[in-house]
Amino acid sequence: MTDNRTPVTVLGLGSMGTALAEAFIEAGHPTTVWNRTASKAAPLVARGARHETAIADAVAASPLVIACLTTYDHTREALEPAAAALAGRSLVTLNSGSPAGAREMAAWATGHGARFLDGAIKNVPTAVGKPDTLLYYGGDRSVFAEYETTLRVLGGDTVHLGEESDLAALYEMAVGGTLLPALVGFFQGAAVVQARGLEAGTLVRFTVKWLEMINSILPVFAQEIDSGDYTKPMSTVNLFLEGAAYDEQLGEEAGVDVAWHAPFHDLLRRAVEAGHGDHSISALVEVLRKP
Amino acid sequence: MTDNRTPVTVLGLGSMGTALAEAFIEAGHPTTVWNRTASKAAPLVARGARHETAIADAVAASPLVIACLTTYDHTREALEPAAAALAGRSLVTLNSGSPAGAREMAAWATGHGARFLDGAIKNVPTAVGKPDTLLYYGGDRSVFAEYETTLRVLGGDTVHLGEESDLAALYEMAVGGTLLPALVGFFQGAAVVQARGLEAGTLVRFTVKWLEMINSILPVFAQEIDSGDYTKPMSTVNLFLEGAAYDEQLGEEAGVDVAWHAPFHDLLRRAVEAGHGDHSISALVEVLRKP
Repeated sequence: MTDNRTPVTVLGLGSMGTALAEAFIEAGHPTTVWNRTASKAAPLVARGARHETAIADAVAASPLVIACLTTYDHTREALEPAAAALAGRSLVTLNSGSPAGAREMAAWATGHGARFLDGAIKNVPTAVGKPDTLLYYGGDRSVFAEYETTLRVLGGDTVHLGEESDLAALYEMAVGGTLLPALVGFFQGAAVVQARGLEAGTLVRFTVKWLEMINSILPVFAQEIDSGDYTKPMSTVNLFLEGAAYDEQLGEEAGVDVAWHAPFHDLLRRAVEAGHGDHSISALVEVLRKP
Repeated sequence: MTDNRTPVTVLGLGSMGTALAEAFIEAGHPTTVWNRTASKAAPLVARGARHETAIADAVAASPLVIACLTTYDHTREALEPAAAALAGRSLVTLNSGSPAGAREMAAWATGHGARFLDGAIKNVPTAVGKPDTLLYYGGDRSVFAEYETTLRVLGGDTVHLGEESDLAALYEMAVGGTLLPALVGFFQGAAVVQARGLEAGTLVRFTVKWLEMINSILPVFAQEIDSGDYTKPMSTVNLFLEGAAYDEQLGEEAGVDVAWHAPFHDLLRRAVEAGHGDHSISALVEVLRKP
C-alpha cells in the first residue's frame, strides 16, 4: 500500500474482528492484526494483513487501534502488556459491557495516554462494510473527527453519540433489550405453527411485516414517553390486558410453555392499578421505572 | 355507484372498522355500515355509505359481509338477530381470538348457510388500503377466489393461508407473540436513556435498525428450527446467557425494574441444561415445547 490511508490495527479475530479486518484490507488500509490464538490471523495475512504475535507490537503498528474482544475486562487484560505502547494512539473498543465498564475502560486507556472511543456494531459480521450498517460511538470527539472516514469503512451508518465514553454502552443496553424477547416470541410462534404441521419458514415473512409495523409506530410511542402524555392512545393497556387471556389458550392449543409471558401480564396489571388502563401501552414505561 | 363493484357491508365501526369502510367507499364499492352505537356511522354516511340501524338489514344489503368487532363471542352475539339473513352470504370476520374461537365461529356461520373466512389485519388503521399492508385469511377458498379483488382494497399484501377456518387465528398467535415483548424492550430502553437525561426519541432510529437486523436473521433461525440442526450457530445460547448478567447492571445503572427478564434467563439456563449451550439460540424452541 503506497497511498495515505490510515494504518489500522485490529485486536481480536473472532468472527466480528475478522470481518472488521477484512473490511479495512478491502478498503486499502494498511492493516495489522493480533489474536491470542495466532492461527486465526493466517487467512487475513493471505489477504494482505500484517500479523504481530505480541500485542504491544500490534498496538505500536498503527495510530488507530480497534479492539474487538469479548468484554472490557478481557480487553484490559489483553492490552496490559501493550499499555506503554498506547501513549499517543487512539483506542476504539467494540465489545459488550455496561456503561460502568466503558467508563472504567476509558479511564484506564486515557491514563496510559491514549485517546478513547467506545462503540458498537449494530449488526452481524456479514453486514460489516455495507452502506446501511449502523455503528455508534461515544467518547473523544477528536478521535471520531480525525478517523471518521476510516471508521465509516465498517458501515455507512456511522454515528458519534457524544463526548461521554459510556454512551455507546448505554444505547447498547437501551436498544438491546428487544432482542431476546423478540426472538423468543418468534421461536414460540415457530413452535405454534410446527405443532400444526406447518414449517417455521412460513412464519418469517409475516413476522418481518409485523416487526416493520412495530418499527412504524415507535416514533409515536417515543413522543408519548417524551411528552408524558399517554391520553391519546393508539392501543391501550386494557386492550393488551384483554389479549393476555389468549396466551394461555395458545399454550393449550399448541403445547407451548407460555410461562415467560407472566411478567408481561404483571406489568400490564400494575399499569392498570396505577391508573393507566385507558392510557397508551407506552405508559408501561412509568411502571418499569423504579420509584 | 353504477359500476359493478361488489357491494360490501362493514359491521363494527371502531377505528379499524371505520378504516375498512372508508377504504371500500374510496374504491367505489357500494358500502353499507352498521354499528351498535349508530352515531359512529354519520361520518361514513357523509362520504357515501348507506347506514342500517338493524344488523339484519345490514347483512341483507351485501353479498360480502365483513365483521370487525372485538371477539368471536361479541361477533356471534351481535349477529344473532341477523342469523336468518346470513344464508347465501359470505361472512368475513376480522377480530382477535383463538383458533378454537375461529373454528366455533366458522361452524356457527356455515350452520346458518353462510360461507366463511376469518382473517387478520397485520397493521394499524392508518395503513389500511396501502399496497404493502398485510392481511391474511383462512377458510373457504371459494370466498377468497370470488372476492380477492375486493379484499385487496384493504391492503395490497393479501394472502389466503389455506382452507382451514382457524389458520389466520393460528398465525395471529404465532406472529403476535413478539409484539408486547418487543415493545416492553423498547419502553425499557426509553427509561434507560431518559434516566440519563436523553430523549426516548433518540432511541427510535437505532431500535428500528435493530429490529431490521433481527428481521434479516429470522430466515436463518427458521431454517435451523425446521431442520432441527442447531449446530452451526450465529449466536449461541451460552453467549446470550453471558449477556444476561448485564440486565442486572442495566437495572442498577438506569433505575429500571428488570424483573421481567427473569423468565428469559430461565429459558436460557434450561436450554443449557438440555445440552444446547453451544447451539444456536434458536434451540430455545426445543425448551418452549411442552413434553
